Amino acid sequence: MSSTIDTSDKSATTTRRGFLKGSGAVAGGVVLGAGASAAAETENLPPNVPDWMKAPGDPMGSQPYGAPSPFEKGVVKNISKNLKQYISASGRTPLQELDGIITPNGLFYERHHGGVPTIDPAQHRLMLHGLVERPLIFTVDDLRRFPSESRIHFLECSGNPGYTKPYGKTASDLVGLLSCAEWTGVSLKLVLQEAGLKPEAKWVIAEGADAAALTRSIPIEKCLEDAMLVYSQNGERLRPQQGYPLRLLLPGFEGNMNVKWLRRLHVTAEPAYSREETSKYTDLLPDGTAREFSFYMEAKSIITRPSGTQRLSAPGFHEITGIAWSGHGKIKRVEVSVDDGKSWQDAQLQEPVLTRALTRFRLPWQWDGKPAVIQSRAIDETGYVQPTLAELLAVRGENYFYHNNAIWPWRIAADGEVTNALA
Amino acid sequence: MSSTIDTSDKSATTTRRGFLKGSGAVAGGVVLGAGASAAAETENLPPNVPDWMKAPGDPMGSQPYGAPSPFEKGVVKNISKNLKQYISASGRTPLQELDGIITPNGLFYERHHGGVPTIDPAQHRLMLHGLVERPLIFTVDDLRRFPSESRIHFLECSGNPGYTKPYGKTASDLVGLLSCAEWTGVSLKLVLQEAGLKPEAKWVIAEGADAAALTRSIPIEKCLEDAMLVYSQNGERLRPQQGYPLRLLLPGFEGNMNVKWLRRLHVTAEPAYSREETSKYTDLLPDGTAREFSFYMEAKSIITRPSGTQRLSAPGFHEITGIAWSGHGKIKRVEVSVDDGKSWQDAQLQEPVLTRALTRFRLPWQWDGKPAVIQSRAIDETGYVQPTLAELLAVRGENYFYHNNAIWPWRIAADGEVTNALA
Repeated sequence: MSSTIDTSDKSATTTRRGFLKGSGAVAGGVVLGAGASAAAETENLPPNVPDWMKAPGDPMGSQPYGAPSPFEKGVVKNISKNLKQYISASGRTPLQELDGIITPNGLFYERHHGGVPTIDPAQHRLMLHGLVERPLIFTVDDLRRFPSESRIHFLECSGNPGYTKPYGKTASDLVGLLSCAEWTGVSLKLVLQEAGLKPEAKWVIAEGADAAALTRSIPIEKCLEDAMLVYSQNGERLRPQQGYPLRLLLPGFEGNMNVKWLRRLHVTAEPAYSREETSKYTDLLPDGTAREFSFYMEAKSIITRPSGTQRLSAPGFHEITGIAWSGHGKIKRVEVSVDDGKSWQDAQLQEPVLTRALTRFRLPWQWDGKPAVIQSRAIDETGYVQPTLAELLAVRGENYFYHNNAIWPWRIAADGEVTNALA
Repeated sequence: MSSTIDTSDKSATTTRRGFLKGSGAVAGGVVLGAGASAAAETENLPPNVPDWMKAPGDPMGSQPYGAPSPFEKGVVKNISKNLKQYISASGRTPLQELDGIITPNGLFYERHHGGVPTIDPAQHRLMLHGLVERPLIFTVDDLRRFPSESRIHFLECSGNPGYTKPYGKTASDLVGLLSCAEWTGVSLKLVLQEAGLKPEAKWVIAEGADAAALTRSIPIEKCLEDAMLVYSQNGERLRPQQGYPLRLLLPGFEGNMNVKWLRRLHVTAEPAYSREETSKYTDLLPDGTAREFSFYMEAKSIITRPSGTQRLSAPGFHEITGIAWSGHGKIKRVEVSVDDGKSWQDAQLQEPVLTRALTRFRLPWQWDGKPAVIQSRAIDETGYVQPTLAELLAVRGENYFYHNNAIWPWRIAADGEVTNALA
């Protein structure tokens, strides 16, 4: 091999820098003057070889369970400074820092009401009782003996964001109570069949083993469709914040119903009307009645790059990318507007497009350096189109809080700064 | 809500325990005597409510970047006690502990030759030079301005395992230099087009910024097919052990060629014949010639559960599950034998089956409690069938080390203990 060649910042700034234009050129770096001779053109060269090549790096075994680079220490869950511990505790996924559709377990959003219990899996039990032929108690190992399945699904809190201003500055502030993982567990249908449902069984009341004993009522149809009892997430066992050692997963349903630290399934004829489906997770409508049991997360999307607090470095080529999802199935199309909603273009969807999972979309864009408003809207396989905030508010009224799936525009200033256009 | 019901181990052991048999029953737990009254039948009840429900758990913010449960502290990379640091350092993925196809970043296998460098991404550069019209130097930010793509692919070391005994006890010992992730980055083809390839360009020589300056030659055809310059893995930026801030990804090619900490791409007419493609990663054939540039990882599979050092708790239903993969494309079929290779059954493949990615397979099995040998074999979309170890050795001879993709059988003893049948 030939000797190494200077690639330092010093050299870079003294050669011609520019984003390439014209046929086929989309972006670029530093163009060297004449092949590998660029370094020689520069006085006072820094060393050819960066410091980290001059001595061996960290030895094997220093991190038997790995961690991100120290240069990524700012990429953590987005936790409000003013949260009420044990009542409204939440940590949001930093969506604007992430690529693809998988959320790494360390950055998966969390939301809990009684702190995160540390549960010994050998002591944990799941009880299944009520309107069944054979009430059963399962250990975690019992459930691991059932046939398993793995599926990639998103999970989203229904207060993501609420309709209450201020909405926040970043994509994470707005919709960071959203993540996506590959889940492995047992079909709930199979477990219910093992116990034998009685004909009058219409609901399953799920209870968590946290200090809040969080309780939600699930319609039996969902339990027999695609609900899972999950023990693993992205390959490894669930994290404590995600319900270790066992959680309920209801693909496409609001996050709160996906009960963590699952200890009990009570099969009943009527819902429980628990705190989480009366005082919370319901909405007062303009006519004075309440919307309750609003299970499904409707189709939604957001541009994550460029997004709020980011900055476009220069006019020219920029890729617009984001995520779209629907509790009703697959994303069929995502449209992007770069002219404040006057016109819309189809974005490219990254394959595979999976049901009730995040879908990554992308659109190439030449920014002319003028102020612009960009936004995306999702269309799912049912034909449903993600609405504007104004459209939602017109229907739902002043007292609505949950299930805000509005289109969210970002404003780009002439200096490239990106801000929330609805803040 | 009704009061909580005892689900403690004490109660469990004093009620009737047994795995359910008969119609539809596949596994089970404890059958309660009469609905929710089982607890009342037991003397000296432990408290109804487990300790972790009696007080709030860990508050939000105690782990802004999460970690697994303390009860999973044994699930770490499998690192040999006798490794030669900086020469043969490797940490294997604990495959037998994992579900699904995604390997979490903390458990992704690693293999390096000069330790793990800590690279400042703002200082890192990628130089592209040689047989190109416009030599270029890129910052990481430059590369992030290119159109991006995300794909799920496996990565496997070609010495996984070598042909040298002892082969090890667990699935991780055998084939733990194997992992799978969702990668995001830039098409290498696009970056090469930006520089403009000269007609005589036939190879791209990739160099890493580690202390070993690891160097491999990549045929131009692969660079123009599906090679990527990757900056993110499972959503977040690459871990240092995986090449932060930039690595080459060559889907389906042996792991060593997927150069980490990528700093240079030298476009040439001939390969470099570096250490890693002469002294290492070549094999002496029976006729005295060497097999070199053995890029593709052939179709392969392994049963991960039950597998070596695990134990079947009792006769009855057990799911056999494992992973299959091929560097040549999609897995078409996986066959499983439970009678020492006399007969084979088709396993179920978990959708989506993706090209050059792990594919999870499963087969329901009723174990009769007698000694058994179980094994899997993969067939990929080219029709290639995973061979036996004897078949491979007959062709490749005594001096072969790399690219052992043999079928690997597990022996199950009458007491349920699982061991390596070829050790």
